[in-house]
Amino acid sequence: MDGPEKKKAWSEVVDFPIPGRTNKPRIKGLTMVIDKGLGLVSTEELLNVAGDYIDYLKLGFGTSALYDEDVLVKKISLVRSCGADIYPGGTFFEVAWLQNKVKDYLKYAWHLGFSAIEISDGTVDMGYEVKRNFIVMAKDMGFKVITEVGKKDLRDMPDLNKFIRQVKKELDSEADLVIIEGRESGKGIGLYDARGNIRKDDFAELLLNTYKMEKIMWEAPLKKQQQEFITLFGPNVNLGNVAINEILALEALRVGMRGDTLKNTLSAGEFLQCVLI
Amino acid sequence: MDGPEKKKAWSEVVDFPIPGRTNKPRIKGLTMVIDKGLGLVSTEELLNVAGDYIDYLKLGFGTSALYDEDVLVKKISLVRSCGADIYPGGTFFEVAWLQNKVKDYLKYAWHLGFSAIEISDGTVDMGYEVKRNFIVMAKDMGFKVITEVGKKDLRDMPDLNKFIRQVKKELDSEADLVIIEGRESGKGIGLYDARGNIRKDDFAELLLNTYKMEKIMWEAPLKKQQQEFITLFGPNVNLGNVAINEILALEALRVGMRGDTLKNTLSAGEFLQCVLI
Amino acid sequence: MDGPEKKKAWSEVVDFPIPGRTNKPRIKGLTMVIDKGLGLVSTEELLNVAGDYIDYLKLGFGTSALYDEDVLVKKISLVRSCGADIYPGGTFFEVAWLQNKVKDYLKYAWHLGFSAIEISDGTVDMGYEVKRNFIVMAKDMGFKVITEVGKKDLRDMPDLNKFIRQVKKELDSEADLVIIEGRESGKGIGLYDARGNIRKDDFAELLLNTYKMEKIMWEAPLKKQQQEFITLFGPNVNLGNVAINEILALEALRVGMRGDTLKNTLSAGEFLQCVLI
Repeated sequence: MDGPEKKKAWSEVVDFPIPGRTNKPRIKGLTMVIDKGLGLVSTEELLNVAGDYIDYLKLGFGTSALYDEDVLVKKISLVRSCGADIYPGGTFFEVAWLQNKVKDYLKYAWHLGFSAIEISDGTVDMGYEVKRNFIVMAKDMGFKVITEVGKKDLRDMPDLNKFIRQVKKELDSEADLVIIEGRESGKGIGLYDARGNIRKDDFAELLLNTYKMEKIMWEAPLKKQQQEFITLFGPNVNLGNVAINEILALEALRVGMRGDTLKNTLSAGEFLQCVLI
Repeated sequence: MDGPEKKKAWSEVVDFPIPGRTNKPRIKGLTMVIDKGLGLVSTEELLNVAGDYIDYLKLGFGTSALYDEDVLVKKISLVRSCGADIYPGGTFFEVAWLQNKVKDYLKYAWHLGFSAIEISDGTVDMGYEVKRNFIVMAKDMGFKVITEVGKKDLRDMPDLNKFIRQVKKELDSEADLVIIEGRESGKGIGLYDARGNIRKDDFAELLLNTYKMEKIMWEAPLKKQQQEFITLFGPNVNLGNVAINEILALEALRVGMRGDTLKNTLSAGEFLQCVLI
Repeated sequence: MDGPEKKKAWSEVVDFPIPGRTNKPRIKGLTMVIDKGLGLVSTEELLNVAGDYIDYLKLGFGTSALYDEDVLVKKISLVRSCGADIYPGGTFFEVAWLQNKVKDYLKYAWHLGFSAIEISDGTVDMGYEVKRNFIVMAKDMGFKVITEVGKKDLRDMPDLNKFIRQVKKELDSEADLVIIEGRESGKGIGLYDARGNIRKDDFAELLLNTYKMEKIMWEAPLKKQQQEFITLFGPNVNLGNVAINEILALEALRVGMRGDTLKNTLSAGEFLQCVLI
């Protein structure tokens, strides 16, 4: 093949059916990927093929404690070299908090090379003021800060009004992103009913909210959830907990190169133009 | 180990319980794999282990537009070097058609090295005569041509009789293979009910049809579907949308090296001998 | 990074919330992984990242017959070099038995380098005495022997009392491990109802049994099953049929670095201290 390097295939042949997709480094339309243990070669492979479509890579749960330190340092460095942020799952922060070790946790994460950090209270109860102090502390250390709203156990979830108030409060915090908990499964938790459908009526106030919408990231592991968010908010909605092997499939959804969202472009009446984002 | 290279392990110890499995290059018993973004090392790895069991590799949906051109060219070349055909998902063709660019699409696909092409109307409506002209056009350019029958959205599906008539019409076309849409999920679409079971009564006419059966490829992503097709038609039924990490598992099903089909061989009464294929 | 090689990341910062996890080579707390066709590079990658958390690697079903012999020999050698045992799925043994080739099967498996062997009757009926003779034969050849109890087809399952008696009988055999069938799906088979929940009432006798409990390995492919076994028996319960990409996630569950089991440690009342194991 001749031509310049790094040309996207087909770029001179067809246009993406859904226009306006942002490029890296993007401030909206972020994709956060959940990594459950890729090795170094696989990580490099992933970045070579899908690096342009990964903005954040999360080492799920507390899995980063299971790596040999030298492997972890190399992995973090690889991910950052392609312009993506990388951070340990929020449960790790919660464990550190339980052991009164948040400061050590943050310092060591910085030492390893992590560029972002998640501040969550999905399993523990720390109260909002405490949480907010950690957001500020991490921000001051130089991290991009992701705060998460929502409990991992359905029985612990606050009522809807309180949940939505919490989201709004966090949108006003110093955090860079506010994540809405969806877990890895995307089912029976917060936004999602037991089958993984978005509870649109219950969450109408949140979904119709336009206030700082670009700061919200929706954990949306299932294709139908990704499709629905793209239909609601357009290609540049922030989506998280995307599985490693679904990154290109999601990007295809975003730009209308997959049947489910291509169809939207054919029936303008059904397709909400991206007024919100 | 001594002996000739490329000897299959165990070949001198046990026989496959289901005999008669075809070898590459095969004209029946084809396996089509859906690839959602493997990198070059992973592709090579896949071919080293499972290359003998991959006849077609589809770059799902429009994901091939998300690769850097140089990576895509190398990937296509790798796949072809192991004697498998490779093609972009049909949705990409439909996008090109919507933009009046089918000829450019085909020419560029050829230029990249794709050896096959899918002509589908799963999301768009183009009418059969138009579709057939593209089948002929692609065939004339040298592609192996795969035509797909079925809509991606259940609400767009024609009634059963019409669907079956369409399949038969396509079997008479110049296409090399006629794919029955099953999507990546294998649920609630065409042949499959919401749980992914084959609607055997509804599709009896198609399933009992022996006319050019070797030209039909069933998209069957779920194990129970693969198992059922093998039980109905024997080891050399054409199966598509097989996940990357299920290729050896499917091949084990085909030859009776997995409980589900091994059991068939134990109770001949339950096992339809492969009369159709 | 300075410091000794192979230091686990974070080890000086936080403690695992669930203490007492065993290290390799472990005699309890074993993890058995099901491999459906990893190539050599991917296998090496997997071992580099997750090798400390893999005790047994099973080449699922009869897939080991689908490898080129030289690739298989190298793969076996890689796995053993990290101190894990590797063996072919039990269905392969059953095929050999059907063809009256068990001795050849065992000799060739040994020749290839397999260090363990599974003796099962999930699809065939051989009677316990026959099965036990093969356990002894394999043991005498030097294999670690894994015997499996349970049928792959629900319709073939013995009644509960008989099933539990079989487990107890096998616990007294010469086998190193007794595996309770859970299949790859973990649903609608033996221990699990159609949704994959553990039938705790039906299996109370088995679950409360403390007799040689460390010899039992539960096939538990689903996260909720792994979580439940860890809640019941603590971090050092033996779990099998773990998917390749879930190994670190399971290890995080074992040590309380994932919300689901971290929560247990917060409410001691809900958490059975690991009395059994």
